[in-house]
Amino acid sequence: MNTKRGGKIVLHFIADFFVYETAKSVVVKSWSVGIINRVVQLLIILYFIGWVFMHEKGHQLRDTGIESAVMTKVKGLGKFNNHVMDVADYVVPSQGGSSFAVITSMVITANQTQGRCPETEDKFKCTTDDNCMAKLGSNLGNGIITGTCLNTTNGTTGWCEIEGWCPAEDDNVSEKPMKEVENFTIFIKNSIRFPMFNVTRGNFPSSLNQSYIQSCHYDPVDHPFCPVFKVGDILRHINQSLDSITDKGGEIGININWKCNLDYNVMYCNPIYFFTRLDAAFENSVASKGYNFRFAKYHQSEDGTERRMLHKAKAIRFEIIVSGNAGKFSTVPFLINLVAALTSVGLATVFCDIILLNFHKGADEYKAKKFEEVSGVVSESANNRHCEGSQMSIKALEKSSNDSGTFSIGRQEAHSSSNQ
Amino acid sequence: MNTKRGGKIVLHFIADFFVYETAKSVVVKSWSVGIINRVVQLLIILYFIGWVFMHEKGHQLRDTGIESAVMTKVKGLGKFNNHVMDVADYVVPSQGGSSFAVITSMVITANQTQGRCPETEDKFKCTTDDNCMAKLGSNLGNGIITGTCLNTTNGTTGWCEIEGWCPAEDDNVSEKPMKEVENFTIFIKNSIRFPMFNVTRGNFPSSLNQSYIQSCHYDPVDHPFCPVFKVGDILRHINQSLDSITDKGGEIGININWKCNLDYNVMYCNPIYFFTRLDAAFENSVASKGYNFRFAKYHQSEDGTERRMLHKAKAIRFEIIVSGNAGKFSTVPFLINLVAALTSVGLATVFCDIILLNFHKGADEYKAKKFEEVSGVVSESANNRHCEGSQMSIKALEKSSNDSGTFSIGRQEAHSSSNQ
Amino acid sequence: MNTKRGGKIVLHFIADFFVYETAKSVVVKSWSVGIINRVVQLLIILYFIGWVFMHEKGHQLRDTGIESAVMTKVKGLGKFNNHVMDVADYVVPSQGGSSFAVITSMVITANQTQGRCPETEDKFKCTTDDNCMAKLGSNLGNGIITGTCLNTTNGTTGWCEIEGWCPAEDDNVSEKPMKEVENFTIFIKNSIRFPMFNVTRGNFPSSLNQSYIQSCHYDPVDHPFCPVFKVGDILRHINQSLDSITDKGGEIGININWKCNLDYNVMYCNPIYFFTRLDAAFENSVASKGYNFRFAKYHQSEDGTERRMLHKAKAIRFEIIVSGNAGKFSTVPFLINLVAALTSVGLATVFCDIILLNFHKGADEYKAKKFEEVSGVVSESANNRHCEGSQMSIKALEKSSNDSGTFSIGRQEAHSSSNQ
Repeated sequence: MNTKRGGKIVLHFIADFFVYETAKSVVVKSWSVGIINRVVQLLIILYFIGWVFMHEKGHQLRDTGIESAVMTKVKGLGKFNNHVMDVADYVVPSQGGSSFAVITSMVITANQTQGRCPETEDKFKCTTDDNCMAKLGSNLGNGIITGTCLNTTNGTTGWCEIEGWCPAEDDNVSEKPMKEVENFTIFIKNSIRFPMFNVTRGNFPSSLNQSYIQSCHYDPVDHPFCPVFKVGDILRHINQSLDSITDKGGEIGININWKCNLDYNVMYCNPIYFFTRLDAAFENSVASKGYNFRFAKYHQSEDGTERRMLHKAKAIRFEIIVSGNAGKFSTVPFLINLVAALTSVGLATVFCDIILLNFHKGADEYKAKKFEEVSGVVSESANNRHCEGSQMSIKALEKSSNDSGTFSIGRQEAHSSSNQ
Repeated sequence: MNTKRGGKIVLHFIADFFVYETAKSVVVKSWSVGIINRVVQLLIILYFIGWVFMHEKGHQLRDTGIESAVMTKVKGLGKFNNHVMDVADYVVPSQGGSSFAVITSMVITANQTQGRCPETEDKFKCTTDDNCMAKLGSNLGNGIITGTCLNTTNGTTGWCEIEGWCPAEDDNVSEKPMKEVENFTIFIKNSIRFPMFNVTRGNFPSSLNQSYIQSCHYDPVDHPFCPVFKVGDILRHINQSLDSITDKGGEIGININWKCNLDYNVMYCNPIYFFTRLDAAFENSVASKGYNFRFAKYHQSEDGTERRMLHKAKAIRFEIIVSGNAGKFSTVPFLINLVAALTSVGLATVFCDIILLNFHKGADEYKAKKFEEVSGVVSESANNRHCEGSQMSIKALEKSSNDSGTFSIGRQEAHSSSNQ
Repeated sequence: MNTKRGGKIVLHFIADFFVYETAKSVVVKSWSVGIINRVVQLLIILYFIGWVFMHEKGHQLRDTGIESAVMTKVKGLGKFNNHVMDVADYVVPSQGGSSFAVITSMVITANQTQGRCPETEDKFKCTTDDNCMAKLGSNLGNGIITGTCLNTTNGTTGWCEIEGWCPAEDDNVSEKPMKEVENFTIFIKNSIRFPMFNVTRGNFPSSLNQSYIQSCHYDPVDHPFCPVFKVGDILRHINQSLDSITDKGGEIGININWKCNLDYNVMYCNPIYFFTRLDAAFENSVASKGYNFRFAKYHQSEDGTERRMLHKAKAIRFEIIVSGNAGKFSTVPFLINLVAALTSVGLATVFCDIILLNFHKGADEYKAKKFEEVSGVVSESANNRHCEGSQMSIKALEKSSNDSGTFSIGRQEAHSSSNQ
């Protein structure tokens, strides 16, 4: 008896589980609302197709973790201070990485040795030792201030004495910059990888032959695949004259942007180059413009003392900045956006319900149909729930709306009598 | 006749297409359920407004592909081993990039030439040639082990002979580190760009004048825009003493974090600096602490033989790590999150249905209203579908719930009789 | 009177606001549709659990802005051209950063001074000065072409004269590369940080002791935590012979990939290493294979003239590429995906409605139940809205479907009579 009843319950449960439930709909045969509904739905669909999927590629998985390796090689010969300068002289560092400086002019202070000597900067002019004592510990000089004022002769202004590499650098000397830099070329070999899709690409096709690469210069229209960039062309692209950048030195960014749609053939995954003056953010800054750095070459005299040749170099620094991302169809973002799209299409109903329930001729009629009311306090007996009985608790609902955003405004009072 | 009928079908189709369909709702006038419903909806809305939109900026498109260029310049003078050291001496590499080392102490082995000489490390002590033969091919010495043991005199311990740069480096010599490093300053010029929004920013405003930049030191409170960092201040920020870092060398990260809300004026897009000891992950490691490297300066004797001066330098390496992202209002993420929000608000119904259908006084009444049943086997004739006929297939449904998560528990048996 | 009426309206409004509205459902007791419904729902749920949540970690917030610091140290001794080479000789740059080159062979041109001398490249062979005048301004030579052809003797081919560092480099000399490079080891210390979760990790555990690190070599199976990599092992991993890479030089990427699930203990957050030949994208390229660069060591003669020793170095460049991301449970992505999941489960209804309304035995019956029709032109008086009255406007709906994707195909004509 007990198992029989248990079995019955299980059966009941299974039967209930496989019951299919679907929303009951009210169908309104109204041309005006029907057309508005379809137009709103169409707009939503067009938005999703056009913007979310076609423009924003909402159906693709995006790999933004691009891995990149850059090799550069500068070519060109210049003349500075009657010396011929080649790559080994003007490119620092020499290894051909993604960041390097091309020296355009130098202030060279030769034969420095450790010792004591006068400063050269105007900041350190003095007439008495007290002037120099006040500057003890300064980081701005060429050496450690000793506190002594070295006057040339009686009473005239002299310079504070420093301890350090002597003679001190005098960077007021100005040499003409190496203007041949405009004809220098930069060869860039950039290979990238999108780890998510395991796609490896180079910035120029394997089919380019040696002689083309040796002779071509990059041009966005005529030679988009040529990996050789002329410095003069780059300056033109960023609207800078050679003088403006060699005057104080500067930083130029060569951006290699990879934006790949891997739903197409990988052959179409090619980079776009563009150029920026990286210190542009400081263009209007009155302080610390340009780019320069100091380095020294060390020599040893026969007597064993170390000498150095200090170089203050003004340079153009090039930074190869590789960025990009790749997209490929993937179910997860596609589904999320599709569900968002479908759900959004359903939102047309919200808009139409507002019209239908408030501004349409038969609004009351629709309300009566759409909303079935159940009072909070139910007293009818169970067997009373027949057609007539249930009708008693069903009445047209006039409410200020709410869920699903349907708003029916005012007129509640007026109608309450019409339902009965 | 045929075209007339075809036209009629087309008309019918169009009429059907513009029919408007909206969900039929059951309205329950119950204070308890109504209030619960609104409270749950309110919580969901608050969650979305407060967390998703205000905190997580769910309505913004985010550009995480920040492009950055860093220029650094160290200033300061130190004394090491009675030599005054300036920037050209202690900063490696000299070009002022985003990663550089400040040498704080060196072991210098002067006048090395190619040849044969004894090792200096304890690992290579020997008494017989066999001791050294066992170490052939070792990578740990200062030169290639020849297999000979160079004993000073009879029977005492000597050192294995090496072939290479002689004399071998003896790094047990310890010089006092250059403690002036604490007063050195690092000037950082960082310009960034968010390619997605084409926004370029510098780490300090153009309005700062030269004299301010030359005299200020960064302080998070007093000088948040000063781009000059004192090494001592940085050490204080990361709770390290100078001795702890100069003892074995170390790595310090200067993080420049850009977090920009481009819905506001771009003027508010400013970086936050913070400092980390990069080798902190290896703090408790017993092996290979600190940071040091070897480099050589090469000289040529008059007789043409190459000599070198080997430097083993302990240094503080600074890495400027630029990170950040920018957000700006965009329709796609906004819509996705808004749809998620609206859909989630609808989920309040799920919760309230559970209460209403199970724990509320008039639960059975509601079930009867909410669910209209259609039997799987339908035998009534079509014209029977009047009020009474349809009533026959409509009955209160008692089911274990299911779709839309509505659960009505138990009591199926008890009620099945009450539905007639 | 007025306040009484106003109060009544407010009360009415509040009462309306707390009315609870839930969708009216049609329940179909059909085994076939019920089972289909449940199976479709199950598939959708399985998809979300298996793919979106378990595989794609849709419930986690992802930090892709990994911050990384790399320190490297190469060890090993080689012989090139009868000279013993140590770290200070063959690693450029010496500071032990994330990118460095190991020089495997060099063409050394000693004792260059500024002056005039003949070219050495075949491109600059000439018989008359006109040959050389045609090459004025070329960037490909070792110096600036003067336009003079230096013929050895009468009529035989000579070389164009250049101005620059003399004698010109002759890179046809080929020395045997330093083959000991295969035994060199690279020690890598990599510490990373996920700023979003403030998690710092090192690439090897602190518990490794000094002697293990000094003796171990990385192996993916036996020594996965050993941070010392043998160059020969790396070459084996990327299927390259030493000869193939030392012949022209090359670039090798050591990828350190961190993929951390921070829902588990941070101890399980360890990197995976893999190796790539970075110039693989140019493998089939006929042009500019390999990797080489030029640098010079400068000397000063007693008479003050500057001399240099030009090195053209073929090298293996190593790039340590750190990538990775970390995920941790977060409510926002979890909720978005959960809502997408729940909404998608509801989409099963769409599929089942199509079956139910078109291909099922009692399709008409279901249509009649699911859709309640309201005509656009409503003329019935309000008091007519009783059971019979409403029945008049309810009739089985035959429409080509539409909203929520339910399609009921054809048969409209046949039925229109059955609806009375």
